[in-house]
Amino acid sequence: MSDIVTALADVVGADQVLTGERVSADYGHDEALSTTAHRPSAVVRPASAAEVSGVLRVASAHRVPVTARGSGSGLSGAAVPEPDGLVISFERMNRILEIDTDNHVAVVQPGVTLAELDEATAAHRLTYPVYPGELSASLGGNVATNAGGMRAVRYGVTRTQVLGLEAALPTGEVIRTGGKLVKASSGYDLTQLIIGSEGTLAVVTEATLRLYPRPPHQATVLAPFRTVDEVAHSVPKVVASGLAPLILEYIDGLTMGAITHAQGIDLGLPDEVKETAQAYLLVMLESGHADRLDVDTERLGTLLTELGAIDLYVLPGTSARRLVEAREQAFWTSKAAGANDIIDVVVPRAAIAEYLRISAEIAQRHGSYVLGCGHAGDGNVHLAVFQADDEVRSALLRELFEASMKLGGLISGEHGIGRSKKRYFLELTDPTTVALMRRIKSAFDPEGILNPSVLLNP
Amino acid sequence: MSDIVTALADVVGADQVLTGERVSADYGHDEALSTTAHRPSAVVRPASAAEVSGVLRVASAHRVPVTARGSGSGLSGAAVPEPDGLVISFERMNRILEIDTDNHVAVVQPGVTLAELDEATAAHRLTYPVYPGELSASLGGNVATNAGGMRAVRYGVTRTQVLGLEAALPTGEVIRTGGKLVKASSGYDLTQLIIGSEGTLAVVTEATLRLYPRPPHQATVLAPFRTVDEVAHSVPKVVASGLAPLILEYIDGLTMGAITHAQGIDLGLPDEVKETAQAYLLVMLESGHADRLDVDTERLGTLLTELGAIDLYVLPGTSARRLVEAREQAFWTSKAAGANDIIDVVVPRAAIAEYLRISAEIAQRHGSYVLGCGHAGDGNVHLAVFQADDEVRSALLRELFEASMKLGGLISGEHGIGRSKKRYFLELTDPTTVALMRRIKSAFDPEGILNPSVLLNP
Repeated sequence: MSDIVTALADVVGADQVLTGERVSADYGHDEALSTTAHRPSAVVRPASAAEVSGVLRVASAHRVPVTARGSGSGLSGAAVPEPDGLVISFERMNRILEIDTDNHVAVVQPGVTLAELDEATAAHRLTYPVYPGELSASLGGNVATNAGGMRAVRYGVTRTQVLGLEAALPTGEVIRTGGKLVKASSGYDLTQLIIGSEGTLAVVTEATLRLYPRPPHQATVLAPFRTVDEVAHSVPKVVASGLAPLILEYIDGLTMGAITHAQGIDLGLPDEVKETAQAYLLVMLESGHADRLDVDTERLGTLLTELGAIDLYVLPGTSARRLVEAREQAFWTSKAAGANDIIDVVVPRAAIAEYLRISAEIAQRHGSYVLGCGHAGDGNVHLAVFQADDEVRSALLRELFEASMKLGGLISGEHGIGRSKKRYFLELTDPTTVALMRRIKSAFDPEGILNPSVLLNP
Repeated sequence: MSDIVTALADVVGADQVLTGERVSADYGHDEALSTTAHRPSAVVRPASAAEVSGVLRVASAHRVPVTARGSGSGLSGAAVPEPDGLVISFERMNRILEIDTDNHVAVVQPGVTLAELDEATAAHRLTYPVYPGELSASLGGNVATNAGGMRAVRYGVTRTQVLGLEAALPTGEVIRTGGKLVKASSGYDLTQLIIGSEGTLAVVTEATLRLYPRPPHQATVLAPFRTVDEVAHSVPKVVASGLAPLILEYIDGLTMGAITHAQGIDLGLPDEVKETAQAYLLVMLESGHADRLDVDTERLGTLLTELGAIDLYVLPGTSARRLVEAREQAFWTSKAAGANDIIDVVVPRAAIAEYLRISAEIAQRHGSYVLGCGHAGDGNVHLAVFQADDEVRSALLRELFEASMKLGGLISGEHGIGRSKKRYFLELTDPTTVALMRRIKSAFDPEGILNPSVLLNP
C-alpha cells in the first residue's frame, strides 16, 4: 500500500492523499439505509482531470478498486468504497467553469453542488431544473445516478440536461463527449451511456449542462382526496391537460402528517379534511406571465374538483415553499421514524394506483408497513419500508420490485441500483441484458477497478 | 448462398426471402448523394421480433453482414448493404401496436412511417413531435439515426422521445429496454446507446415513444434580414426569450429563392425586400390558447424588429404550411440544382454566425459553393455542397467538418455518419473515443455482422 500512496502523492501532492487517521468515517458511506460502510484505504483529492487521470493510472497499475465520491448523498450505496479501495473525492473540483448565457449552458466540475449552481444561474435569470430534494448533492453524483426529483415531470431528468462530459477512463485516458449541443448524431452517445452508470464506467471530471429561462411566477395547489386510488387516477388527467405542471407529487395521509409535523408546518387544513383525506396531490405551476398563471391555476382547480378532490388549497408562497421543503425532507422524516429502507420503483404513470394497491397487499402479507409519497407525474413511487427483520425485509423488497417490473416498471427511477439493490437487480433482470451490460463494463474497464461491487458483480 | 437462403426461408417463409431478380435496385441505396449503391445478395422481410431473431441467427452462423432497412430515406448511406450482405426490410413490420392515452405513449413496429403515426396520434389530439421533413421516413430509421428536424428546438430529438425498445442482438437474443417510463436509473441505458447507432449494434423490432398534447393554435412569422450574421445573432435571443418556438429555421437568400421557386410559392414579399434580404428567419409558435398566441406573436415581432429584421410577415395558414413544406423539400431542391453533397454539421447555437462565415471562406478557397438553411435553434447547419470534383470536394468536406469541431461542434446533428462521412469521422475523432466505440460495438456484435462498413471500420 505504501507504494501506491507514494505514487498517488506524486500525482496530487502528499497533502491530498489521506490515509489512516485522516480518513474520516464519512468517506465510508453514503445515505443508503441498508449498506455496510467500508472505510477506504486512502482518499485522494485531485484538482484537475489530469490528476484524476494520473490517479486512475496508479490504481490501474496496482489493480486497486476506485470509487468516485461527490457529496455522498446517494441512497443506494454507490459511493461506498471497497474495503481495500481508493476514494476519489471531488471536494477540490468544485468550480463552475462557465455560465454561457448565449448557449444556455453551464460547464461545471463534478464537485459543484445543486445549491451552488442554482445561486449562480439565478443571477442570470436562468435555471438548472433538476431538483432531487437534496440541494447539497453534487452534479457529479447527479450524473452518476441520473438524478430526477420533483421537477422532472416538466423538465426531464439529469439525462435530459447533460449535453456533454469530460471523463477519465479507468485506464487513465480522458475523453470528451457531446458539447454545447442539443442534438448530435456522430457515433455512439457516450454521454448518455456514462449517465446513470453509477461510477462503474468512467470518472466524470466535467459536465456541460443545459439551462432554461427561469419563469418568475409560481402557484401551488394542494388537493386532498378521499383515497390514494383517486389521487393516482387523477395523475394522467393532469398530465394530459397540457398545464405542464412543474411539480406533481402525491403524498399519502400518514406521510403528510409526519412531514408537516416534523417541520412544524400548519397548512390550516380543517381537522375534518385531514381525517377524511387518505392522500394528497401537490401541484405546482409556473409561468412567465402572472395572468396566464391565474387562468391555469383556475383551470387546474376545476379539473381537480372534477376528479374528486375534497377541497382545494392554493398555498401562499411561504407555506408552499415550506411544504415542498418538507416533502424534500421526507427521506429524513422516514429515517427518523425508523424506516428500515427507502425504495423508489418506477412504473408507467397510469399504473401507480395499481402498484400502490399491490404494494400494500405485499406489505400486509409480510407483516410490514410501506408508506410514502412520490413523483406521481413520473410514475416514481417512493416507499419507506418498515420491517426490521433482514430476511423478511429482503423477501418483501424482492416482491415489491418484482411487482413493479410486472407492471412494466423498473427497480429504481432515480436512486440507482448501487450496492443496496444489486442483488434484486441481478435476480430480476433478463440474463441476456445483464451479460450485455457486463460486456459494456469490460469495454470501458477491462481490469474492473471502477466500483466493482456496484450494479453488476464482476 | 443457397444454404443460407434455405435457412432464411425456414425462418420467414420462402416468399419473404427475395433473391436475384426479385431484389429491386431500391434495396441497394438510400438517399445519400455520395455513396455507391450495392445490391444485396438477399432481402428478407420478417413479420415479428422472433423472425428477426431467427434471421440474425442464420446470418451469425454464416457470418453474413446484415443491414436493417426502413423507408430508405437516410442521407448518410447507413442503409446501403454490403455487396454480399442481407437486407432486413421492415415493410411487413409496420403496425402501430398501441396508442396509450393514459401514459401518453405509442408503441410501434420499426416500419411505421412518421406520416402514419401522425395520423394515428392526431385522432387522440396527441402528437409525436419529431419532424425531420421526410414524413415517409420510418420510426426504425429515425431511431437508427437519432432523427431531429425542425421541431427539435422545442421538443428535442428522437433520443428525447424514445422511452423503450425491443431489439434483437446480432447473436439472435431479443432484449427489452426501458418501458413506458419517463425516468429510470436501473443499469446502463441501453435504449440511449442503441439510438443513433445506425444499425451497428442491434436491430430494433419495436419502439415505445413519448407523445404530447397537440396544441391547436400555431402562428408563423417570416423575418427577412440584411445579413446572415444578423440572423445568426438573433437565434440565441429568440431562444432566451422564453417564447419556446416550435420551429426556428434560418434560410439563406439563395436557398429561399430556390425552394419557393421550386414549389411555386409566392409569399407576396416586395421585390426590394427580396433583393435586400440575404437571409430569413422562419419562426413558428404554438399554443393551447389563441389569445396567448396573439400576445406571443406580437412579442416575437417586437423582438425580431429590435434584432434588425427588415420587415415582418405573419404568414397565413396556407402560405405557412407551404413554406414549411418547401423548407422540408430543401434537400430535393438542392439535389435538383446539382448539389454534390448535403451535410448537416452541428455547432453551439451561438456559433452559427461564425461557422457560416468560416464555411463560406473555406468554400471560396476551394472554388466551391455552399448554400443552405438550417435548424438554427439547434445550431444544426444544413449545407448543400456544390463541387463536382471528388478530390476537391473531399478536402472541402474535411475542412468544413474540422471547422465545426473546432467550434465545439460535431460532424452531424441528425443525418448520422453512415458510410458517407465515416472517413472524416474516423480521421477527426480522438482515437481513444473511436477505440472505445469499437469495443462497445464488439460487446454487442462480436462477429461484426451488423452494418460493418457503417460508422466504424471493423
